[in-house]
Amino acid sequence: MAGTVFFSVSMSLDGFIAPESPEALMGKQWMELQAWAFRLRYFRDSLKLGGRGEEGRDNDIVRATFERTGANVMGKRMFDAGERSWPDEPPFHSPVFVVTHETREPWERLGGTTFHFVNDGIEAAIERARAAAGEQDVRVSGGGETIVQCLNAGLIDEFTIALAPVLFGKGVRLFEGVDDSRVALKQVSSESSTPHATHLTYTVQGRRAPI
Amino acid sequence: MAGTVFFSVSMSLDGFIAPESPEALMGKQWMELQAWAFRLRYFRDSLKLGGRGEEGRDNDIVRATFERTGANVMGKRMFDAGERSWPDEPPFHSPVFVVTHETREPWERLGGTTFHFVNDGIEAAIERARAAAGEQDVRVSGGGETIVQCLNAGLIDEFTIALAPVLFGKGVRLFEGVDDSRVALKQVSSESSTPHATHLTYTVQGRRAPI
Repeated sequence: MAGTVFFSVSMSLDGFIAPESPEALMGKQWMELQAWAFRLRYFRDSLKLGGRGEEGRDNDIVRATFERTGANVMGKRMFDAGERSWPDEPPFHSPVFVVTHETREPWERLGGTTFHFVNDGIEAAIERARAAAGEQDVRVSGGGETIVQCLNAGLIDEFTIALAPVLFGKGVRLFEGVDDSRVALKQVSSESSTPHATHLTYTVQGRRAPI
Repeated sequence: MAGTVFFSVSMSLDGFIAPESPEALMGKQWMELQAWAFRLRYFRDSLKLGGRGEEGRDNDIVRATFERTGANVMGKRMFDAGERSWPDEPPFHSPVFVVTHETREPWERLGGTTFHFVNDGIEAAIERARAAAGEQDVRVSGGGETIVQCLNAGLIDEFTIALAPVLFGKGVRLFEGVDDSRVALKQVSSESSTPHATHLTYTVQGRRAPI
């Protein structure tokens, strides 16, 4: 019984999920985008950031997202940026399937994260992640290009956006290149317990490609 | 005592407020974007669409937006598109100040809407709208370019977005060209009483240009 395939990202009000250059990843704008998460206990503990995070509804949402995830799928660009910046214990704590042309042995890290390198495309990566996740769900971690590729191929069942009250002006757009003729959405929930983000959940009603 | 300057638009989840060509304005995508409003009683009555609209929280939001508006400011492109498509009684029921290079006498329509043509720029248009609005508020009606021009000039106090569960893929982006270094936001409220839209309200914290 395959799990749900989803993604969950923070997005600026003007539709961006990352700055233009990976070097700006920890810059001011990105910190503003993620500010809602950095204040939370579960998030701080996961990334071993120290300090005392807040509990409450947002914290529950972050915890639930991590706890439902049995495996991850990731694009090569996100992996490359992460490989340079993740700590020895990356914040996934589950298998990560990286879609790449590079042939490479699995890379095991502390805390239950092992990166597997998949050379036969996004659908194969999702299939392998499904098998690894068992009864849990598969998270498409990113980046934007990989998420849109999955959306257009009908591989995403649902997704959650933490919409932050921030304007980027430029950067990496979440939905750049989405094929609106293939992706119809249904809003499942919308909630905001703090002024730092609104959590929007949608199911994808579009045609689901056979895999 | 000047009123608040605001805008209020429906936006797709990927950031669009209109299709690429004005001819597509009444097309399928735009109708999906506005679907949350077309079902409402106040909206249907205002546009004399007939049929029995729904009441409830969304209807109250639409009514409140119309009732607070004492005058409107509009870009030339939006006016041009509207001039071709509005009924004899346009849905404004208050003065509309059109920013244009065209010199033209005020154009009075049924139902309290008079279009005034302002030739000395957006700030002058807002000043005239403020004077006309009295204790009521000034709505920057659109289009996207005019809204961003006002945002960047520090002329917007607050705004509301009805975020619809629709993807456009292409079209007119609300925040195209926004200067993120000048516009900081604070989320004031976020609510969703139906799956058709989430209503997001922000105040603009950026520097306010003197007018």
